[in-house]
Amino acid sequence: MSNQKNREIRLKRRPVGVPKTDDFELAETEVPTPGHGQVLVRNIFMSVDPYMRGRMVDRRSYVPPFQIGEVLSGGAIGQVVASNNNKEFKAGDYVSNGLGWREWFVSPSQGLQKLDPKIGPIQSYLGALGMPGLTAYAGLLRIGELKNGERVFVSAASGAVGSIAVQIAKNKGCYVVGSAGSDEKCKFLTEELGIDGAINYRKAKDLTTAVREAFHEGIDVYFENVGGEHLVAALNNMRVNGRIPLCGMIDQYNATELPAGPGNLAMAIGMSLTLRGYIVSNHYDMMPKFLEDMAKWIKEGKMKWRETILEGIEKAPEAFIGLFRGDNFGKMLVKIGPDSAV
Amino acid sequence: MSNQKNREIRLKRRPVGVPKTDDFELAETEVPTPGHGQVLVRNIFMSVDPYMRGRMVDRRSYVPPFQIGEVLSGGAIGQVVASNNNKEFKAGDYVSNGLGWREWFVSPSQGLQKLDPKIGPIQSYLGALGMPGLTAYAGLLRIGELKNGERVFVSAASGAVGSIAVQIAKNKGCYVVGSAGSDEKCKFLTEELGIDGAINYRKAKDLTTAVREAFHEGIDVYFENVGGEHLVAALNNMRVNGRIPLCGMIDQYNATELPAGPGNLAMAIGMSLTLRGYIVSNHYDMMPKFLEDMAKWIKEGKMKWRETILEGIEKAPEAFIGLFRGDNFGKMLVKIGPDSAV
Repeated sequence: MSNQKNREIRLKRRPVGVPKTDDFELAETEVPTPGHGQVLVRNIFMSVDPYMRGRMVDRRSYVPPFQIGEVLSGGAIGQVVASNNNKEFKAGDYVSNGLGWREWFVSPSQGLQKLDPKIGPIQSYLGALGMPGLTAYAGLLRIGELKNGERVFVSAASGAVGSIAVQIAKNKGCYVVGSAGSDEKCKFLTEELGIDGAINYRKAKDLTTAVREAFHEGIDVYFENVGGEHLVAALNNMRVNGRIPLCGMIDQYNATELPAGPGNLAMAIGMSLTLRGYIVSNHYDMMPKFLEDMAKWIKEGKMKWRETILEGIEKAPEAFIGLFRGDNFGKMLVKIGPDSAV
Repeated sequence: MSNQKNREIRLKRRPVGVPKTDDFELAETEVPTPGHGQVLVRNIFMSVDPYMRGRMVDRRSYVPPFQIGEVLSGGAIGQVVASNNNKEFKAGDYVSNGLGWREWFVSPSQGLQKLDPKIGPIQSYLGALGMPGLTAYAGLLRIGELKNGERVFVSAASGAVGSIAVQIAKNKGCYVVGSAGSDEKCKFLTEELGIDGAINYRKAKDLTTAVREAFHEGIDVYFENVGGEHLVAALNNMRVNGRIPLCGMIDQYNATELPAGPGNLAMAIGMSLTLRGYIVSNHYDMMPKFLEDMAKWIKEGKMKWRETILEGIEKAPEAFIGLFRGDNFGKMLVKIGPDSAV
């Protein structure tokens, strides 16, 4: 370990519009030494997520903005390499943590969660079994108040959150249609995940019409990941008392001007619709039930996912930027360390 | 009564944009004779309400559209002149009904509600004690889940719904600011209704800034009557877990093109906001409690309202059109019959 260096990605400047690779910089530092009660962790996988774009802007929000010149952060899975806290963590333990975008770090036990590699592969704790999965679960069941057998539309349905959302809805006996940006992704949705229909939004001449053709009786729950024309099309097709959990609006994250909102929002009045925004960190109380349901569904073959994995921490900016082009098929991850370092 | 004629207003053609008086026509018919079990009613007051604009468009909605060449309908207060159903209605009884835009009609007992002129003047059953009042009550308390002491912003606050909404919120111990379209209306809000602040939106250079100055700690509940810039400004100033009951969007009712929606709707995600549309007819179960609360507040001097009354059924189209120019100060009414005809 003596000649081992740590590499990390820092924010070089605040992106304007779509981020570019030179908004980021790779830096090398010493591998730190764990202090009293601390553990040394080597990260294996790190996550890139659309919400991180918001943290690159200097504004008031639910999490403080990233600072220029400082290392970024985000979800990661690592392995404990050395521990001064053997009661809680031993060398070899796999831990979920919030200190991605770096290869090595030391930490007290707070902020580290030991994970169970028997439920799913370690990196799935950044996707299906982690924050994106819980986002889908809380958004549909708590925010969207999904009832068995309802009609559900999910945008960005082959993404990290969407692909879990469609399967949760399907497992609840719902009629489920998703949108995605390629025929290949649509085929995955209907043939591999077994949902009832898929719309390639890049090919649809008019999204309102495409959604209407998929929902002759209208939509009870629209799971919103995209914004823009997707929201307009969904609003035009909602049923009375429909619910729209607002999970994300990836269409808008790189906007340099205020984008146009849905011109048909007044539909929400006549149709008694509820649009409700949420952030997953307010719903961690659902985690135990979520993991229990997911373990059962995985065992029954009723929960599948895809990953797009780039190799090496130097690829992290590229992976992140790719999210906004739809380069990812399922969860976008970066592998930044060996499977085991112990 | 033999030489008495009935006059009524019919829809001559579907308005495009802001309605014009010649979209309507006045017609004369015979006063009908009540059949078995029916009563003959002479209307005294009729209501004009913004929602009626929606019914002039030929489209699917929660109520069927008005038909061209046919008499319009809407809330009215009349007096029973002759009754073939003395068990339920006697000559002289005042009744609330849904057959406005006409002077006389016959009806079975269904659809008529006897009203109590001791709680408020008969025409207040078209305003504070009627549908607009219940709209404010249900919107704030059920849809907006208003809690005592919260910070409340109401648009169109001197209107029929808004002026009741601000007082309900005030009576619940809230900090209340409203917007209105003239200094006179703003003065009425602060000096007569006693709310904490008023914004003349026609004079505000930037509505987001004006709202921020009134809500240094943000808004818990925004009662939405207007849409457009009002919704943008409110979204920019909401507190975490804020609620936005969507009652109306009068800005948009005459739009000939799809208006721009709020470009900052994504604020709802980070701030965990709920936008919920509703129509008052789904909340009539609250009527008894509403009337009980209102009677108490009126008695205590904690509920006041204004009316703008035009005289003569021939003025009904003008009264209706005036709603969209803000001609009304409080509830807009048309007096279409003598105080008593018995």
